[in-house]
Amino acid sequence: MDINLPEVLDEVRAQFARYEKALTGNDVAVLDELFWDSPHTLRYGVGENLYGAAAIAAFRAARPAVGLDREVLRTAITTFGRDFATTNIEFRRVGSARIGRQSQTWLRTPQGWRVVAAHVSLLEAA
Amino acid sequence: MDINLPEVLDEVRAQFARYEKALTGNDVAVLDELFWDSPHTLRYGVGENLYGAAAIAAFRAARPAVGLDREVLRTAITTFGRDFATTNIEFRRVGSARIGRQSQTWLRTPQGWRVVAAHVSLLEAA
Repeated sequence: MDINLPEVLDEVRAQFARYEKALTGNDVAVLDELFWDSPHTLRYGVGENLYGAAAIAAFRAARPAVGLDREVLRTAITTFGRDFATTNIEFRRVGSARIGRQSQTWLRTPQGWRVVAAHVSLLEAA
Repeated sequence: MDINLPEVLDEVRAQFARYEKALTGNDVAVLDELFWDSPHTLRYGVGENLYGAAAIAAFRAARPAVGLDREVLRTAITTFGRDFATTNIEFRRVGSARIGRQSQTWLRTPQGWRVVAAHVSLLEAA
């Protein structure tokens, strides 16, 4: 299994950057596009557990489009072979003291790279 | 890409069950075995962000072996082809009112199935 093939890493980085831009800009069409269109897709958010692409899309559509700006503090992207990747970041929302963490698992589908599972949370104080 | 091939799902379920048993029993040797031995391995815990298998093993070794019991409330395991999988659970620790979430990304390595990235958190109150 080839880890971090440069051309695969470039592809995933590009889609990951699209996701980050769409998230902070609340571009729901791109967010929906980048999540795998499957009942198996899953997203654990800070305050909700969502099962299936439809539930995730409904959450996006209902979400207020304010306060989404965030600073990315650390990024770890790893690719496995040509079809699989993980992206993990630490972030801080503007106006918040708490550190957030976002984990995504990506799959290359016939339609392009898609997030198949995601988990977002805030680090608990020690 | 074949999703949830029965024999692959069986393999991942078996390793996932080993992990759960080792976690609640604090069997550090099995926990260390089941995390990919790589600097790319990453674990976001409830209260810590750990980068690299060595940091994760050090955390396990230092962790108190009490209060690890938990009830699994919901399990979602998905396999992608023959070499990749995600496992996600909701759980509740004994004595805690909060819902926990554990996400793992698994890779088939020459040594067997290994967790390459994990994220554990507690759901925030709405």
